[in-house]
Amino acid sequence: MLENLKILDTTLRDGEQTPGVLITSDEKLKIALKLDELGVNVIEAGSAITSKDEQKSIKTITENNLNAEICSFARPMKIDIDTAIDCDVDSIHLVIPSSDLHIEYKLRKTRQEVEQMAVSATEYAKSHGLIVELSTEDATRTSTDDLKHLYTQCIDAGCDRICACDTIGLLTPERSYEFYKELSTLNVPLSVHCHNDFGLAVANTIQALRAGATQAHTTINGIGERAGNASCEELIMAIESLYNIQTGIKTELFYETSQLVERITGLNLQANKAIVGANAFAHESGIHSDGVLKKTETYEPIKPEKVGHRRRFVLGKHVGKHVISEKIKETNTEVTPEELNRIFERVKALSDMGKTVTDVDLQAITDDILHINPEDSLVLQEYTTVSGNKVIPTASVRVNINNTERIEAGVGVGPVDAAIEAIRKSIKDTADITLEEYHVDAITGGTDALIDVLVKLKYEDKQITARSTQPDIIMASVEAYLKGVNKILSDKKRS
Amino acid sequence: MLENLKILDTTLRDGEQTPGVLITSDEKLKIALKLDELGVNVIEAGSAITSKDEQKSIKTITENNLNAEICSFARPMKIDIDTAIDCDVDSIHLVIPSSDLHIEYKLRKTRQEVEQMAVSATEYAKSHGLIVELSTEDATRTSTDDLKHLYTQCIDAGCDRICACDTIGLLTPERSYEFYKELSTLNVPLSVHCHNDFGLAVANTIQALRAGATQAHTTINGIGERAGNASCEELIMAIESLYNIQTGIKTELFYETSQLVERITGLNLQANKAIVGANAFAHESGIHSDGVLKKTETYEPIKPEKVGHRRRFVLGKHVGKHVISEKIKETNTEVTPEELNRIFERVKALSDMGKTVTDVDLQAITDDILHINPEDSLVLQEYTTVSGNKVIPTASVRVNINNTERIEAGVGVGPVDAAIEAIRKSIKDTADITLEEYHVDAITGGTDALIDVLVKLKYEDKQITARSTQPDIIMASVEAYLKGVNKILSDKKRS
Repeated sequence: MLENLKILDTTLRDGEQTPGVLITSDEKLKIALKLDELGVNVIEAGSAITSKDEQKSIKTITENNLNAEICSFARPMKIDIDTAIDCDVDSIHLVIPSSDLHIEYKLRKTRQEVEQMAVSATEYAKSHGLIVELSTEDATRTSTDDLKHLYTQCIDAGCDRICACDTIGLLTPERSYEFYKELSTLNVPLSVHCHNDFGLAVANTIQALRAGATQAHTTINGIGERAGNASCEELIMAIESLYNIQTGIKTELFYETSQLVERITGLNLQANKAIVGANAFAHESGIHSDGVLKKTETYEPIKPEKVGHRRRFVLGKHVGKHVISEKIKETNTEVTPEELNRIFERVKALSDMGKTVTDVDLQAITDDILHINPEDSLVLQEYTTVSGNKVIPTASVRVNINNTERIEAGVGVGPVDAAIEAIRKSIKDTADITLEEYHVDAITGGTDALIDVLVKLKYEDKQITARSTQPDIIMASVEAYLKGVNKILSDKKRS
Repeated sequence: MLENLKILDTTLRDGEQTPGVLITSDEKLKIALKLDELGVNVIEAGSAITSKDEQKSIKTITENNLNAEICSFARPMKIDIDTAIDCDVDSIHLVIPSSDLHIEYKLRKTRQEVEQMAVSATEYAKSHGLIVELSTEDATRTSTDDLKHLYTQCIDAGCDRICACDTIGLLTPERSYEFYKELSTLNVPLSVHCHNDFGLAVANTIQALRAGATQAHTTINGIGERAGNASCEELIMAIESLYNIQTGIKTELFYETSQLVERITGLNLQANKAIVGANAFAHESGIHSDGVLKKTETYEPIKPEKVGHRRRFVLGKHVGKHVISEKIKETNTEVTPEELNRIFERVKALSDMGKTVTDVDLQAITDDILHINPEDSLVLQEYTTVSGNKVIPTASVRVNINNTERIEAGVGVGPVDAAIEAIRKSIKDTADITLEEYHVDAITGGTDALIDVLVKLKYEDKQITARSTQPDIIMASVEAYLKGVNKILSDKKRS
């Protein structure tokens, strides 16, 4: 039954309802274009009635003639439908509460009144040429008799699709199968809309589709109210990989789509988010990394490229020799098995102290074991920064580069930026190094908490990571940057 | 079948194998004590063979005489078992690869050799008085005949429990039911161990338990290799709330346990993580907040207190008047319905610009609409900071407090800390305000990226949030702090 699945993606509506999230008009368009490229069938672009800005956002999307059907959320009210029409949408997602609880406590109406509102709204929308998908909110706490009674009247009034919402995520996989099975006998397409309050949204959606629903509501990264909605990327990859059904979705765009939504919404994914998380294809433990190096299928359910992601080996306390050996080879350094053993022990000891081992750390250990004694090419003698609300953030540095002293000063948007600029100027004749990424881990605590800075530097075609942890963010930034630069300069000497 | 469920929690073993995660000995003990209080049956404390530090960690836990059975992971090797015994564990979790893929490509052995290793290891461990749980790795890509052949021999050799691992998360709920059903006929307890590569770990675990498995392997927050393991809190709450079965777990400790694991591992939860995420009980949209204010059950599947969490209303573009009205009442301010309308429009306009509306923002809007013109009690005239590697981070401030000028200086671990300290000193005679939380959102980009600082201040029994976004982290921190202080001082005047 999973064939011919359609996706209504509601990242821009239910996803944007995530508390604290706001997506501007330009950003909504960016996401809509990406969803269209991904190949979803319907894009719920927002709820037109929300605000003037929302109307502008939706209109910008409908003006772009996407392949996907563009839809607006609407309550069963003339004003909601009219506003949606003004935005030139193809369809409305008409949402009607159906449980006694919602009808009685939230709407304070009778079931008959609600049914009448649904029918009138459907008729009104149809008479204006809209496709109508009628959703019942809190459907999973409504009797299927009551639901069918409502749906039948709305189908008679012309509604094109019906949807039963598990608004607060109360279904279990087996209940989902039975529930949607019973509703799939009506003669219009049936949609499933699941929330993830108990971590079951994807499983429940799959069971509904197996039972006869033909369209799934999803969001990218599973964002949405509370614990969010069924995640588009998890659902599609489960169907493609575990049920061997091609969905027509361009799955190789999932990672970049996920990154786009993460950046725009500010909702950071946890590292272990399925399919698109930073760790989804990362391996640390010796057993796992070894297995993957021998044959990727041992510990990877799908190839990372299939979703546009990439494999990553992490050096940590569970690391195996195999991975370390691979990493050392990359730097054109040769080690004997005995030396490798000693490097391995040191990496483990370092990570036992609570550190993630960066490229710079591994290099330092290897150099030490091999009695290579590379003096740091760049030595910081002194730096000072000054900043304030009436001061241009300024930094000065005194460094030794290959035993020649240089003094430089720089300004920036803040003291960190100024300090890095001063160092960059001091080395620019030696090597043209770009700061590709500057990352500070979320800091929570007091203003004296330890701050972890990780920098990614680029020199020619090489990328180097380095890190420093200090309570002073400027010092941490300067130190991480210096470590990375010295690694680049020492690699340059070797090659 | 879900009654009498036992939990083997592997946060400290499979969870710690999360790439980049390292839990020190002291931290492991803290988590183990919390897991024991929570009421899990078995704590897999680590893999003794990994390192000396790991042995110390496990030993520290076994010395504490917890109620839970303490277990170490072990490969089917004498050295692994001996090391576990040295740590005084109650049991070992003996893991044997069982799929052709793992046996052939990873171990490079024959099935007969692997079976022999499993039997010998079981016998050896039993002869030393250990409880043995025998797990087959990659069991879901192994025929049930091969599995039963292996299990039967190990049961004969004395193993106490068997476990079939869905190592790379390939099960679907319906396959999980069938698979574990078939294995549940053997006469020792059966465990289920699921990974979350397709977002199905909790659903698959539930189906296995319905089919006859009696113990589930879980981790707090669902951490673990790649996309992680079945999440303990999601599984337990699904069983308690959706199947109405009491598990005996102290569910009200879930939130603090989750926070502890998040803090120690550094694996930040996404806001929409089920049960324990920041948004799991947060409401923004007008429809939802209104519903919850009328009756919490409309949009909350369980009461937040049930898991030790709390409800939160967020002001954003989907906010309803009801919530704003509640928030204003808290500050002893009265507004007419017409004024409320205007405040409502301004909150929406502000959030349309991409801002989360803090307490300070709502206050400013309300004051403006009511023509209250509270001058800021604390006005910053000037601040300057100096820092460097040979300089004590120092800041000076010149402020006006209630029209009296004060100049203060402070030092700190870095310039941010120094600047906040200088301001704190300047106001300490006016109000004794504590900085409860200082939060900087993860910064990725260049060193000139915008930085978002949110502070939570406490004064007497009140908590105030304020925020500032600037490219200079010091200026952002100072501004957020000042805004919060002024809100407190103006509330103080009113009351």
